[in-house]
Amino acid sequence: MADDEFDRIRELAQRFKQDSGGVQLGIGDDAAVLRAQPQPVVLSVDAALQGVHFDPAFASYREIGARAFTAAVSDLAAMGSTPLAALCSLIVPGALPRADFSELNAGLAEAAEHYACPVIGGNLAAGPALSLTTTVVGTLARPGLYRSGAQPGDQVYVTGPLGSAALGLRLLQLGAAARSASFVQAFRAPGARIAQGRALAGLATSAIDISDGTLQDLGHICEASRLGAELELTRLPLAPGMRELALALGEDPVRLALQGGEDYELIYTLPAGVPDPCQGTRIGRMLDEPGPVRVLDAHGQPLALEGHGYRHF
Amino acid sequence: MADDEFDRIRELAQRFKQDSGGVQLGIGDDAAVLRAQPQPVVLSVDAALQGVHFDPAFASYREIGARAFTAAVSDLAAMGSTPLAALCSLIVPGALPRADFSELNAGLAEAAEHYACPVIGGNLAAGPALSLTTTVVGTLARPGLYRSGAQPGDQVYVTGPLGSAALGLRLLQLGAAARSASFVQAFRAPGARIAQGRALAGLATSAIDISDGTLQDLGHICEASRLGAELELTRLPLAPGMRELALALGEDPVRLALQGGEDYELIYTLPAGVPDPCQGTRIGRMLDEPGPVRVLDAHGQPLALEGHGYRHF
Repeated sequence: MADDEFDRIRELAQRFKQDSGGVQLGIGDDAAVLRAQPQPVVLSVDAALQGVHFDPAFASYREIGARAFTAAVSDLAAMGSTPLAALCSLIVPGALPRADFSELNAGLAEAAEHYACPVIGGNLAAGPALSLTTTVVGTLARPGLYRSGAQPGDQVYVTGPLGSAALGLRLLQLGAAARSASFVQAFRAPGARIAQGRALAGLATSAIDISDGTLQDLGHICEASRLGAELELTRLPLAPGMRELALALGEDPVRLALQGGEDYELIYTLPAGVPDPCQGTRIGRMLDEPGPVRVLDAHGQPLALEGHGYRHF
Repeated sequence: MADDEFDRIRELAQRFKQDSGGVQLGIGDDAAVLRAQPQPVVLSVDAALQGVHFDPAFASYREIGARAFTAAVSDLAAMGSTPLAALCSLIVPGALPRADFSELNAGLAEAAEHYACPVIGGNLAAGPALSLTTTVVGTLARPGLYRSGAQPGDQVYVTGPLGSAALGLRLLQLGAAARSASFVQAFRAPGARIAQGRALAGLATSAIDISDGTLQDLGHICEASRLGAELELTRLPLAPGMRELALALGEDPVRLALQGGEDYELIYTLPAGVPDPCQGTRIGRMLDEPGPVRVLDAHGQPLALEGHGYRHF
């Protein structure tokens, strides 16, 4: 199929572009915002599919449940929102053993408790492949974090190391998980940066969570803010030992850091001179000229990059 | 598999039973209710899967989209809630032609417009089978309609004819759709009873929408209200010509009316003497003694019934 995911999403967004009194922010960000008192209500939905987003060979059902929930909650983090409640819609093959089903639910419940985000509803259907679709609802105490507010000259930050989850997945795919539990853990049990998102609300000019890859997700900020961005390769934070382990596996650590998804760290922009409340790592800056994200090597030369991250079509 | 859907749902509900300040009503009804101003926020999620809830052989993609959206909105109707916004999460096989994808979206958009329920967010993923998971958000101007409020002696009503959608599906399965467009239409393009739900809010003691079948859905009211119910066979409203056409196809019209799902009519209970604002049909009454729904024939004798409606496991 020639047309790709973003083309289809653009079609959806165009189709659904509507004004409504109760809607403060519609399609096009990590979440939507509805007007409400005492605080606006933030809403997002995220789906995790077997064979696309997870593989029971690489994580337990408990981890799969927690991870699906975390990925959804991460969209609230990216908005500066505090989780309030969730709805879980499960499609479950009839052949899935009851014990695995229970583990899946245990994982969902653990994550719900961890994020103080109780599951208040859901749906259950039998289907050909396991999927978990999680709708999360949050509140917004301060002005939210949007993709669209970055300004030229803003500094680009990230809350934590990049590419760890991608390396963990690679270790699992290679049957080499024993070589580093911490990266495997980064893949299997990521965390949503709720506290960081809240701290950034009202300060950062834009934010997004890294689900599809640093380049692709920063690209969404660029697109929404109608700007470009420049990253400095030498500034990209890598977890201790990441570079060496990646190279030992024949993987390019830079590619993992730039294009590996599912770290769920936040990328955000702050005006120059504004102290970062999250003590993240500054990795680049926003540019006046719209265009693809540029990455400069140690000599200030732009890297040639292939592809941007995970795409569905 | 021996254990069934409701057993699994009970496990989920048990697992997720939590108290939280913002949650007015959690798992166990057609939708959840969050405390908010100026009005509580009602939330529900519903999934439609190819091969389970729809078959492109029996409806156009436009109808499939609109029907999935309507089924979700129907849960708001059953709560007495007014639709506010929706999130649509689609899993789409890569092989689905772009034109079909566009038709699906057109159906979602048409239903969203019809119910004044704009799509404000969503998710798109490639997967093995087409599915549409719709989260709907509504408001509640008056006390909501819950499954749990029915009282002994309350009269049981239904907003419209029963079994029409099931007969329509049967016509399609038999390749006999030409024999009655109205029943096929009842299956392909059902409507959510939003106005009726709103009119009943504050008056009816309980309500539910018929998605799985009259007996099964009234059974949910019985279970939540810890009561029984008795239906009178001769009172069940059937659309004109339904009985004759069903019999001509070798189908039992009573079985279709009692066990056929997806009519999306509302079943509701009113205290004896309270006039019905919806001018629905009174079909029975609530009984003191908890137990399965009883159906009385024209001589006041209980019918023997097999099965209750659609179950997923």
